[in-house]
Amino acid sequence: MKNNYFPPEWAFQFHGHRCPFMPLGYRMGVLALERLKSEREKDHGLFVFPEVGEGHPQICLMDGIQSSTGATYGKVLITKTFYGKLAAVFYHPQNGAVRLSLQPDFLDEMGKFEFFSYRKRGIEPSAIPPKVADEVIDWVFGLGDKAVYKIQDMPDFSYTPIKGSFTKDKCAECGEYVFERYLRIKDGKKLCIPCSGYVKS
Amino acid sequence: MKNNYFPPEWAFQFHGHRCPFMPLGYRMGVLALERLKSEREKDHGLFVFPEVGEGHPQICLMDGIQSSTGATYGKVLITKTFYGKLAAVFYHPQNGAVRLSLQPDFLDEMGKFEFFSYRKRGIEPSAIPPKVADEVIDWVFGLGDKAVYKIQDMPDFSYTPIKGSFTKDKCAECGEYVFERYLRIKDGKKLCIPCSGYVKS
Repeated sequence: MKNNYFPPEWAFQFHGHRCPFMPLGYRMGVLALERLKSEREKDHGLFVFPEVGEGHPQICLMDGIQSSTGATYGKVLITKTFYGKLAAVFYHPQNGAVRLSLQPDFLDEMGKFEFFSYRKRGIEPSAIPPKVADEVIDWVFGLGDKAVYKIQDMPDFSYTPIKGSFTKDKCAECGEYVFERYLRIKDGKKLCIPCSGYVKS
Repeated sequence: MKNNYFPPEWAFQFHGHRCPFMPLGYRMGVLALERLKSEREKDHGLFVFPEVGEGHPQICLMDGIQSSTGATYGKVLITKTFYGKLAAVFYHPQNGAVRLSLQPDFLDEMGKFEFFSYRKRGIEPSAIPPKVADEVIDWVFGLGDKAVYKIQDMPDFSYTPIKGSFTKDKCAECGEYVFERYLRIKDGKKLCIPCSGYVKS
């Protein structure tokens, strides 16, 4: 295993606890960058579409992906598809797209580790003994890439990022700034969505 | 200014570039934790609802919020409302809720800094001279909390997190694992959403 596949300590600090899925996402992101011959994204040029959803575990993958690729939620570069799958598509407009998913056989084997019996009993990751977390993490990082990940090139994948605008105006009701596309009109006045009452609070 | 309001170096590394909004979000998150008498979230017990949207700048706020609060996208603790506003609600089930927003007068003053003339010319943050970024960051961190943030307690705010399930099954078509709530039925077979064709790819 190359060392740069393993998350730096700050990625664990960002994530908040020690679990196998953040590191699995980190490594997935590094492999995707290698495949796309791309650097970690400093600004706004790499897009990731994780196929995870909500109401299921193992989404921690995404904190690893954010950390290794730089495609962060704050830069609007990572968007879930809500398919409930442990996979992600990585797209660089100049360098193409690749999909990485976790191998089903790998998931079956990993599920036997003690870490998951703690989780299924409702014990939060930070309360699981570190040696129990490290046992499964060490096992994962002892496996070769192909045992863990399926890698598929996606030559037909495309995505057009939204064109942004700096233009904003104040809501006539609360006085707070609102970016133009989210201003709404009520009785001829420009309002923010909550003040317009156009959506339930 | 207290030093723990300023992001550690790893938060800049995570974010990928030096801009004023990540640090503004970091400080917003620390202030919210103080108000809620809460610690940085290690696991899954703090929820943040940023009122930002897409197609507008300054969303970098959210990477600061993720970094200081531990309410990360990978732990499904941060969810945008798509109001296009530079604000966020922070909710801790035991400790209550608070909303922080950026003061309009503060935003007007900040907009005069050279950093934003670079951004409006389409220059990416990592290509802006560091001294230009530091000039506005230093100014922001020289201001008192009330000059920058409006803080509103939200005693009536509530939110019920989705109950998760570990149960998954393989898609009968592609063989990949799918968490149960995202399985779909077609011709009597359990399929993942892409294989079912129930949504456009």
